[in-house]
Amino acid sequence: MVWLDEEQAGFGIEHLPYGVFSKAPDAPRVGVRIAGRVLDLAPVLDDEVFAAGELNGFMSRGPAFWRTTRDRVTELLDDPRRADAVAPHLHRIEDVRLHLPFQVADYVDFYCSLEHASNLGRIFRPDEEPLKPNWRHLPVGYHGRAGTVVVSGTPVRRPRGLLGRPGGPVFGPSERLDIEAEVGFVVGTPSRLGEPVPGAAFADHVFGAVLVNDWSARDIQAFEYVPLGPFLGKSFATSVAAWVTPLAALDAARVAGPRQDPPPSPHLARGEAAGLNLMLEVALNGEAVSRPPFAGMYWTPDQMLAHMTANGAALRTGDLFASGTVSGAAAAERGSLIELTWNGAEPLKLADGGRRAFLEDGDEVVLSATAPGPDGATIALAPVAGRIEPAPTSR
Amino acid sequence: MVWLDEEQAGFGIEHLPYGVFSKAPDAPRVGVRIAGRVLDLAPVLDDEVFAAGELNGFMSRGPAFWRTTRDRVTELLDDPRRADAVAPHLHRIEDVRLHLPFQVADYVDFYCSLEHASNLGRIFRPDEEPLKPNWRHLPVGYHGRAGTVVVSGTPVRRPRGLLGRPGGPVFGPSERLDIEAEVGFVVGTPSRLGEPVPGAAFADHVFGAVLVNDWSARDIQAFEYVPLGPFLGKSFATSVAAWVTPLAALDAARVAGPRQDPPPSPHLARGEAAGLNLMLEVALNGEAVSRPPFAGMYWTPDQMLAHMTANGAALRTGDLFASGTVSGAAAAERGSLIELTWNGAEPLKLADGGRRAFLEDGDEVVLSATAPGPDGATIALAPVAGRIEPAPTSR
Repeated sequence: MVWLDEEQAGFGIEHLPYGVFSKAPDAPRVGVRIAGRVLDLAPVLDDEVFAAGELNGFMSRGPAFWRTTRDRVTELLDDPRRADAVAPHLHRIEDVRLHLPFQVADYVDFYCSLEHASNLGRIFRPDEEPLKPNWRHLPVGYHGRAGTVVVSGTPVRRPRGLLGRPGGPVFGPSERLDIEAEVGFVVGTPSRLGEPVPGAAFADHVFGAVLVNDWSARDIQAFEYVPLGPFLGKSFATSVAAWVTPLAALDAARVAGPRQDPPPSPHLARGEAAGLNLMLEVALNGEAVSRPPFAGMYWTPDQMLAHMTANGAALRTGDLFASGTVSGAAAAERGSLIELTWNGAEPLKLADGGRRAFLEDGDEVVLSATAPGPDGATIALAPVAGRIEPAPTSR
Repeated sequence: MVWLDEEQAGFGIEHLPYGVFSKAPDAPRVGVRIAGRVLDLAPVLDDEVFAAGELNGFMSRGPAFWRTTRDRVTELLDDPRRADAVAPHLHRIEDVRLHLPFQVADYVDFYCSLEHASNLGRIFRPDEEPLKPNWRHLPVGYHGRAGTVVVSGTPVRRPRGLLGRPGGPVFGPSERLDIEAEVGFVVGTPSRLGEPVPGAAFADHVFGAVLVNDWSARDIQAFEYVPLGPFLGKSFATSVAAWVTPLAALDAARVAGPRQDPPPSPHLARGEAAGLNLMLEVALNGEAVSRPPFAGMYWTPDQMLAHMTANGAALRTGDLFASGTVSGAAAAERGSLIELTWNGAEPLKLADGGRRAFLEDGDEVVLSATAPGPDGATIALAPVAGRIEPAPTSR
């Protein structure tokens, strides 16, 4: 079909991620991405749940409905005899505006990469064991700010904050603005307060996956984070991709996670092939500076879910939980600048001759990822992009 | 008037807190509490914003509308000639069900009591300075789980989690379940991403105050909290009162906060009379065990707001930010059991002959507070109650 052009590889019929788009003067509504087009779902599926400005209503209907919807969309797009009926509801991506695809309920950020946690331990606490005693027993995580999750393409304003100085802290623009390349998971089906959700129920509750850039002001974070964790160093913005990849599209990407030593507590037991073979890429001003592999993450997504609810915490439709920075063992596989430049000591040398320890105003970061799809196809997780704007100058 | 009976002192015409109630078979709607009654606002004010099951729509309209509404309700209730017209819309509290008064957007928990932070430092890190180097420079805070904020009266199930043991952590029910007596503030007017909100704009954005019990599983928290802060030790439940006290009702309670040394950074400068003279009470199974004074809180609510947004983080209608445990200098003024019993070493001796280090199944905790109102009246912040249910027995 005409819209399945080669430049849009990764968004073929085997992928079909969901998002929210608008075309003036119409209000935002749910669409499916196919190649470089958006299919307007409300008219072709004749269901008002897709006429909403967020995926939440659709996601809350649960896995049987997600499956039926995917099957119907696949049929529609796969059948040349329907092309004429479908065509009026296909819009070119360049002609629409993309919105935050779901209203974020709670946002949880984990810390699941052994390499990332070890690197940060070595950088910040060089005289200690890099991993804290709890790290191998549970996926360490914390709550972030749901209200400042923004869609890919939203400019990110450099935050100001209290920066530690020998003579006492000084308020000013962050000088150590960083990225964190992460994979996020979006909850569709809620759970009841007081009732833990086992990892085996992952596909009953989790709707899909989305790339996340958890922007981090390392200097603000360093001064504030003891003893209650990161706050303003993270809460100024968290970017997510405009398209949520349904779990079903990632079936061929499932892999076993790495061996865990010690074995986790039974309530955190990992399922078979609970890892995901996603290969991320971090691009800074168009240049690839890192390729973090998600397959090696020590804690897998089902374990994050089981941990997050082990105390009876309820899930809501729209909950987002992210993996934490994805970093591999090799230097070129690290998912944050603080690791890539070893806290700024070894600046990146860019192809344009520039050097970067941390982000400068005007820098643009794009995270992308690919995964194996069925029958040798490739799935491209939608990218998440953001450009740094200068800090405000006045109070 | 007949409904202004003496037993309902603290909820007189000078108070008028807002909540959400329902009376079967009608759907939940916004009401005002006067003495032991609820005034159904939608019919008497003829505005659909009060026919909603949450205060958010009302709160989002901003301070001029809040003032007008309060004036109109005061007039209605103050004029004997209108009593007959108003009476059909007044329901006895016993006859209605009370709901979570607002949909919580983001929940932030601070750590603003010098005494509480010092006590916890002494308990957990006896060989160190009790306060971390950042504590006197900013109001330390973190994000909690908005989705598990529940209304007063909701049972609280004892959480399970990984508890540190000499031979390695063990998964089981928390054995150190605690309370934290706090005062929360509810945001009405949102702000724009990237634009800090100064403390002087407090009354433009904050709709009102509400008592908060930030239930805490100290053993789960102790094992998990390094380095990213509390997570499952808190996220199982946070209780808020059913009635939100509008800021205007607390005008007579305003006091200067304690002197701050060193003086805070200019962006955290405190306003005049930015403190609140609220006297809290913690009751365990009906017995008052502590009376924490809010007036002495080192960081005041306007400073919390300025800090929370200093990095450009946006506010949303329904954001809840709480003070952290309110503890005074005296032993009988501590707002948590871990302080009252010095980490369990000095159990409370209860009037019924029992002893408590931490909460047992079946225990009920009620937090309440009073504040000076106008002309010698007293305002009673609505109480927040919760009873502990046993942990789940199966996985």
